[in-house]
Amino acid sequence: MSSWLHVSDDSDFSVNNIPFGVVSCQQRRFCATRIGDYVVDLSLLEAEGLLDDALGSEAGRSGRRIFANPTLDTFASLPVETRDAVRSSIQSLLSTASAALRDNSELRQNAILPISSVTVHVPLTIPDFVDYSIFPAHALGAGRAIFGPDTPLPPLFGRLPMGYNGRAGTVSVDEAITRPQGQIRAFSPGREVSIGESKALDWEFEIGAFVAKPTAPGSVLSPSSAESHIFGYVLLNDWSARDIQSLEMVPLGPFNGKSFATTISPWVVLPSALAPFKVEKETAPELELAPAPEYLAEPAGAKTAFEIDCATSLHLASDPATPHLVSTANFRAAHWSFPQLLAYQTFSGARLQTGDLLGSGTISNDGPRRQGCLLELAKGGKEPLEVGRERRAWLEDGDEVVFSARAGPEGSGVGFGELRGKVMPAKNLTLV
Amino acid sequence: MSSWLHVSDDSDFSVNNIPFGVVSCQQRRFCATRIGDYVVDLSLLEAEGLLDDALGSEAGRSGRRIFANPTLDTFASLPVETRDAVRSSIQSLLSTASAALRDNSELRQNAILPISSVTVHVPLTIPDFVDYSIFPAHALGAGRAIFGPDTPLPPLFGRLPMGYNGRAGTVSVDEAITRPQGQIRAFSPGREVSIGESKALDWEFEIGAFVAKPTAPGSVLSPSSAESHIFGYVLLNDWSARDIQSLEMVPLGPFNGKSFATTISPWVVLPSALAPFKVEKETAPELELAPAPEYLAEPAGAKTAFEIDCATSLHLASDPATPHLVSTANFRAAHWSFPQLLAYQTFSGARLQTGDLLGSGTISNDGPRRQGCLLELAKGGKEPLEVGRERRAWLEDGDEVVFSARAGPEGSGVGFGELRGKVMPAKNLTLV
Repeated sequence: MSSWLHVSDDSDFSVNNIPFGVVSCQQRRFCATRIGDYVVDLSLLEAEGLLDDALGSEAGRSGRRIFANPTLDTFASLPVETRDAVRSSIQSLLSTASAALRDNSELRQNAILPISSVTVHVPLTIPDFVDYSIFPAHALGAGRAIFGPDTPLPPLFGRLPMGYNGRAGTVSVDEAITRPQGQIRAFSPGREVSIGESKALDWEFEIGAFVAKPTAPGSVLSPSSAESHIFGYVLLNDWSARDIQSLEMVPLGPFNGKSFATTISPWVVLPSALAPFKVEKETAPELELAPAPEYLAEPAGAKTAFEIDCATSLHLASDPATPHLVSTANFRAAHWSFPQLLAYQTFSGARLQTGDLLGSGTISNDGPRRQGCLLELAKGGKEPLEVGRERRAWLEDGDEVVFSARAGPEGSGVGFGELRGKVMPAKNLTLV
Repeated sequence: MSSWLHVSDDSDFSVNNIPFGVVSCQQRRFCATRIGDYVVDLSLLEAEGLLDDALGSEAGRSGRRIFANPTLDTFASLPVETRDAVRSSIQSLLSTASAALRDNSELRQNAILPISSVTVHVPLTIPDFVDYSIFPAHALGAGRAIFGPDTPLPPLFGRLPMGYNGRAGTVSVDEAITRPQGQIRAFSPGREVSIGESKALDWEFEIGAFVAKPTAPGSVLSPSSAESHIFGYVLLNDWSARDIQSLEMVPLGPFNGKSFATTISPWVVLPSALAPFKVEKETAPELELAPAPEYLAEPAGAKTAFEIDCATSLHLASDPATPHLVSTANFRAAHWSFPQLLAYQTFSGARLQTGDLLGSGTISNDGPRRQGCLLELAKGGKEPLEVGRERRAWLEDGDEVVFSARAGPEGSGVGFGELRGKVMPAKNLTLV
């Protein structure tokens, strides 16, 4: 399929994608899709009646508006069939075969805006953010970077997904990340404890999933029934101050070391856009993981993983214009699928709400430069990573981290866009 | 001060209290205060103009309504002076000296309702819930109940508050708690791992604090400036399935073992109501805790603790009408104040939002039956607690836990009301 709008061949946002987001322009905030370097104002398509067929009984229900809202909450809470029908309708309206939008010059003028003219926002209200660790290579590599090369995988890794609650209020689409301060334990041999700015600032490349329909209290999802409760996916940077985190992990887990910033890419890619790239999970037989218990199991051979190529580039403070590719990894190596994570939470009584965000944990594979964070790439600071002519144990002020990810082979036209974050110096903070 | 409304001598809700909450009655949800066994509809007092002086410039600001809302979010975000002025105004209207409400029979008829005629609700939208462990006796006792009598206090207990993110979407005012299921590790000698309903269900008696005014990103509060960011206090039961929790603690902290239920009392008691009961913290010199670092320190002799007597009663399934007092403790033994907790979070870059909820962690003192959870009272199941003629290692189906707490001496008329929760059998859950 191709579009009557110009989309460059290497765009993540071809007509095959049709992600959803929230933008503002001239004081007005609304829901939009993105195609190439344009955004399309969905509230205007809705007002024009162009989405009526797809919305079915949802359209005009006592004046209800789905897209003239400052979040995607209402749209995400609709049944999966309706969400998919809306995406298909937009796809049709933007494809070469359709004239309804193309030949309505007034509507085109108003509804189609260059991406440079809008500001992007967090797309949904996020009631809860849960961060997992579903990549065996990361669970193993992070443990070894901190506790030494003989550290084993947590013994229950194959039996239950490892997760913890993050700080939902910290999730943003900011591109400037202020270096945090706190009580820290140095990553140097003496491991001194002090108070000051973090000297071990790190990124974590993750994919996040937003919850669509809520669940009733007490209702338990299976991995199969959980699929329709996923609205879509974004890139997620779980910024981590390793030296703050180090003092918090025992006994209560991560806290202030991750609560200063969690950033996401603004365009939510729907499961239907990623459906062509579903594959079987890549297993790690050498780890001899116990099989998942029955309530979390997926049928043998089920295609519940996604072929998504992830890449991290670093722009050094000394040469901000030059990207250095420092790491690549494929999402397919995830040991658990997002539907399994939802099944896990609901089995023990958690209720899901629209907008709940789940993070995959750092996407790491086996092999050199296949890790999604510096903790692993630079072995906890012990083997600084070569980046161009410099070396990095941890991030320095002015460094910019750029994530990108694309589903399937080159040219599929389905990707996540970039998630950028630049490290700003710690503020000389005055107590107020 | 006394009221022209009947308030029994032992009520927690005298005219000295004036807490805030949200109730519904006949399909309408609104903000209210409680006095004795009545609630007062604040949206009607506001509409009548009776709160105009207190609200000052906030009143009628472009038709803005503070109390005709389904949450206290708007009211909580006002400056502390306005919140306190509103509380004082309501106090005056209900006191014997004032005729404005007493002699307006139509308004009285509509605005004053028996507590039995309304349904209570979670009073604020909760963007994030953070649970702490600020009582040394609990940090020590819980560790010893699990790991044995020689377990020391975490070494940094005096340097930084121990906390973790909880599940905000789980917070409710429900009085029926369904026993959760999950992957469990038994509290018996073999410590077998299995899947099924929790056999180690526990309560945790805590006090929760709601955040009032939000902070700007990057703004850091001192313990002193943080005070005005606290809206008020509630009782909080951090229900815990110890055998689910047991498998999760290493390395990421509590998760599903606490995400099935967190309940709070519905009436938010304001700091100004508790001001007469401020005292110096009760210290535990025998623990030789390191002093707090400067950015968290409070002046020597500062009255930053509250004299609040907490009591837990158990109604056994076999005899639901009989309360058995199983534990008492005083909140004064908290090692950290809530303003210190806010200072701690903001120092490392967390932004506060109106409605953020902070839990104190289990309120335990030294001595027999002075612990706020069964884990400590029954030593991890090893020494079941005598309750009437029965014994409890953990909660049984049909048991009802009742928390109450009162500030200062008997008859002060400032308390939190009851927080009740009854254990319902695990559901025979069908995967949907």
